Amino acid sequence: MPAWDEIDLIENLFAPLATAPEARGLRDDAAVVSPSHPLVITADAIVERVHFLPDDPLDGVAMKALRVNFSDLAAKGAVPIGALITLMWPASRDGARLAAFAEGLKQDLAAYRCALWGGDTTSTPGPFAVSVTAFGKPCGPNTPSRADARIGDDVWVTGTIGDAALGLRLLRDSATPASPDHEFLMTRYRRPEPRVSFAPTIAALAHAAMDVSDGLIGDAAKLSAASGVMLTLQQERVPVSEAARSVLAQRPDLMDCVLDGGDDYEIIFTADPLSASAIEAAVRAHSVQATRIGAVSAGEGVRLEFPGAPARHVRRGGYRHAFASGG
Amino acid sequence: MPAWDEIDLIENLFAPLATAPEARGLRDDAAVVSPSHPLVITADAIVERVHFLPDDPLDGVAMKALRVNFSDLAAKGAVPIGALITLMWPASRDGARLAAFAEGLKQDLAAYRCALWGGDTTSTPGPFAVSVTAFGKPCGPNTPSRADARIGDDVWVTGTIGDAALGLRLLRDSATPASPDHEFLMTRYRRPEPRVSFAPTIAALAHAAMDVSDGLIGDAAKLSAASGVMLTLQQERVPVSEAARSVLAQRPDLMDCVLDGGDDYEIIFTADPLSASAIEAAVRAHSVQATRIGAVSAGEGVRLEFPGAPARHVRRGGYRHAFASGG
Repeated sequence: MPAWDEIDLIENLFAPLATAPEARGLRDDAAVVSPSHPLVITADAIVERVHFLPDDPLDGVAMKALRVNFSDLAAKGAVPIGALITLMWPASRDGARLAAFAEGLKQDLAAYRCALWGGDTTSTPGPFAVSVTAFGKPCGPNTPSRADARIGDDVWVTGTIGDAALGLRLLRDSATPASPDHEFLMTRYRRPEPRVSFAPTIAALAHAAMDVSDGLIGDAAKLSAASGVMLTLQQERVPVSEAARSVLAQRPDLMDCVLDGGDDYEIIFTADPLSASAIEAAVRAHSVQATRIGAVSAGEGVRLEFPGAPARHVRRGGYRHAFASGG
Repeated sequence: MPAWDEIDLIENLFAPLATAPEARGLRDDAAVVSPSHPLVITADAIVERVHFLPDDPLDGVAMKALRVNFSDLAAKGAVPIGALITLMWPASRDGARLAAFAEGLKQDLAAYRCALWGGDTTSTPGPFAVSVTAFGKPCGPNTPSRADARIGDDVWVTGTIGDAALGLRLLRDSATPASPDHEFLMTRYRRPEPRVSFAPTIAALAHAAMDVSDGLIGDAAKLSAASGVMLTLQQERVPVSEAARSVLAQRPDLMDCVLDGGDDYEIIFTADPLSASAIEAAVRAHSVQATRIGAVSAGEGVRLEFPGAPARHVRRGGYRHAFASGG
């Protein structure tokens, strides 16, 4: 028997968060939802030792579980309205520790105005894992897919790229962050900032869009394959944070980690060059950075151009494999 | 790096199953659904060594993952229309083994006319786990909750109770099923039969309803607590299979395992006694067994009556705890 009781956990920790009538107080194994608009639906799981670290505080794990899903919604031009959360909690661990998880959940559900509609709690002989299904309301009639890039579009990306992957990579060398820069990078890993406030801009102006979670270049290659186009990206335009810049000054070999390490939870999107000024205006209005990093043309794959070095041409999956083998 | 590639898995095994336009070919991180009716939404995960055995064939694991969710939908009077499936696959295992999982998924999606709308695939350092979110269409205006039992109602249960739990219990004593009866019980564990064909009857005639997955008595106690009533159940009316009956003849001590072992995926529901003949007609029409096992009265908890022995009064969670401690 586990050292905790599913009924108690749900009753004490999670039911108080499920105030929406759709959730039926989490007492009914099912939610009943009657949306008056299309639902954008996404599912993403995070697993201990894969997507978060065993000693990461659990309130932050709850937030990350929600936010990686909210990031997918934002990339479709939608804002979160509801979520189902399935916990797989190690049978040997004290269920009382989940109070911190519930607290993080509560904070982010409130911050993102998202209702808790339901979920499941089960024990596992393995690591802690959280599987979320998130529901979004589109901000406009357009929910951009990966397949809608048009020749002549600009390619944009929100925020900065590579922070989380760089933080994790440095952790291999020194178990505890050795500098304020490394602290910043680890916060970017533990607490991604989904670009929810940018969702209306994506809905209004993006042609193709997707969230960057598996690495900028690999994800750009997926978008190019889905759209049947080529993306040409300038490496020196890829936005990096001050912290990443100062790490790269010492370790230029880590540039590949920035470009394709993943865990960014930013949005890559394409848009008509005529939309550039409207995008710049949205950037200022929402305090979300967005940077033009390239352009769409006929062809296939991603052409990555470097200052003073030969360009690389990456097809889907190609960069990841090169990266994994140290290339 | 895992011995498999998420992109290849999705592309080769799962995308061919996602033929509904809502799924966007699984290439878009999100589904877009525009239902013209309310959606009944449920989420249930199954974990290796908790809900299935490490050597269970993977086609059956896929079926069980779907079916435990379809059972929740049926208990709300709804039939499946779509599902999101999140796989956590051990990093050390060959991804090619998931072909069998995809085959089981394909078969059951077709059998239950359910679309694959999306999901996620991630590696895990732990056991194989499958988290499903299933979407149902209500068969009528009523989606019975646990809270709607009325004083004077009959209490019904579909199918037979205790098969799966008894099969698992016997497995502790002998690692391989030693008899055709045990084989039957293990099939009931591995391949539950959600009562989807009974969903219209539940929608039309049930007051309160829920699926029996954690044990008949414990789940009845949850229903009684949610409805604020007492359920009086006759132990000798609880429907058991021939196989279970023959095991119990040898091992009468296993009756508690039948009554509260769980993994039944049947439906317990309450209905007006005047609905009895309509329910009996539905039983004949759909070849689904349903048995009247008791009645609803004022009070709280579950009163379980035994022939020739004192009744037991169980409050929510009480039977499970008594069962766990050998009571």
